[in-house]
Amino acid sequence: MENPESGLRSAVYQTILSRRDVRGQFLPDEVPADVLSRLLIAAHHAPSVGYMQPWSFLVIRETETKQRIKALFDTADAEAAEMFSDKKSDQYRNLKLEGILDAPINLCITCDRNRAGPVVLGRTHMPEMDIYSTVCAVQNLWLAARAEGVGVGWVSIVHEGALKAELGLPGHVIPIAYLCIGYVSEFLEKPELETAGWRKRLALKDLIAFDHWNGEASDARDDELLEQSGLDQKAVMNGSFVGSLADH
Amino acid sequence: MENPESGLRSAVYQTILSRRDVRGQFLPDEVPADVLSRLLIAAHHAPSVGYMQPWSFLVIRETETKQRIKALFDTADAEAAEMFSDKKSDQYRNLKLEGILDAPINLCITCDRNRAGPVVLGRTHMPEMDIYSTVCAVQNLWLAARAEGVGVGWVSIVHEGALKAELGLPGHVIPIAYLCIGYVSEFLEKPELETAGWRKRLALKDLIAFDHWNGEASDARDDELLEQSGLDQKAVMNGSFVGSLADH
Repeated sequence: MENPESGLRSAVYQTILSRRDVRGQFLPDEVPADVLSRLLIAAHHAPSVGYMQPWSFLVIRETETKQRIKALFDTADAEAAEMFSDKKSDQYRNLKLEGILDAPINLCITCDRNRAGPVVLGRTHMPEMDIYSTVCAVQNLWLAARAEGVGVGWVSIVHEGALKAELGLPGHVIPIAYLCIGYVSEFLEKPELETAGWRKRLALKDLIAFDHWNGEASDARDDELLEQSGLDQKAVMNGSFVGSLADH
Repeated sequence: MENPESGLRSAVYQTILSRRDVRGQFLPDEVPADVLSRLLIAAHHAPSVGYMQPWSFLVIRETETKQRIKALFDTADAEAAEMFSDKKSDQYRNLKLEGILDAPINLCITCDRNRAGPVVLGRTHMPEMDIYSTVCAVQNLWLAARAEGVGVGWVSIVHEGALKAELGLPGHVIPIAYLCIGYVSEFLEKPELETAGWRKRLALKDLIAFDHWNGEASDARDDELLEQSGLDQKAVMNGSFVGSLADH
């Protein structure tokens, strides 16, 4: 992989760009143990601060457990709907935001804040780095799943304390991501919130600065970076922005 | 990609498993604008809570800026070394933990906590979800870089307030990751902290539970999952755990 082929590179970009948060397209088909194990291996190979590997994986298949988690979601979801203005609130209530009971597997990825003792290399000044490491594990799993043709949806509309109690997590372990996992009828072309008109994709070039917050482009390289970052979304989605390029 | 080819799947796993935190192997070769733009496009296509897209990207190329950040690292690094016991402290001082001046590009990925207003879908009960979204963007970029043959190292040994001030970040914007980016002489076979004997890779099967914290395997599927998760590390690294399998 020192001189990566464009095929490999293209595969990675295709996976990243076509990954979706899945809520409404789960199939009941069982996810075989070897597939699920590969997803967990991908997660376990995330970067971790001080090689701490603070994550654990709770695989949830029992219907009763899922039903109790679904009830926690329903409570929080009703509270959330009240927080939006009238028009947004109606739109919010019409969105399907989870697939807890539809997905054959639910997975809670947790972070054990004590896993490597009180002093951890790289965490001495940013104590939240163990949490960031765990999120990297979530994203590894999500991309591996997409490459397997498996959908993942992240449920975040739940009271953290209630979720902790339901799953029996000790005080020093926090739930980072509650995921719904399963094969899907389709991966949607765009994020659902974009299609629904909830929010638009921001222009990447507006999110780039140089050397300092709000620092502007100062040379031709910077200008070229901004221009390339404004590539047409279609070229990004179909991978043609990768395939036509020579290798380094 | 509905029925992914094993070649594509294998490419994604190879990328995930051979990704490294790079500190000492950076080359001065310039990273072309088109390559850097693809890395940012990958980051920008991370999942984000409520489609918030809270990230910004500060591209740092000026030597003077890098030198000031390096000085912030040196201060924190010296403080960190004092926190370990004698033997670990000596070992800590011998580790190279950053490539700030060596890497042609430094990149700070930030999170704007106000980007989508006061009420954000999916963030009503877990306000930290915007930060998690930004970490997903970091991991997307890291994997895209690996597929491009570009190394990335995450510098977390720095006082957050000092970094914010140096880069001129407003109060509502927090620095999530300070990354060193560049081509490399090699990608090491194993994480450096593993090779150095700092910590070992944990056995994945010890990190898996069922339905509840410490919940044990209750059927043949669970047993098979644990068995598959204990696959030999070599099979994981060379991808043979993927290549030999039929598609779903």
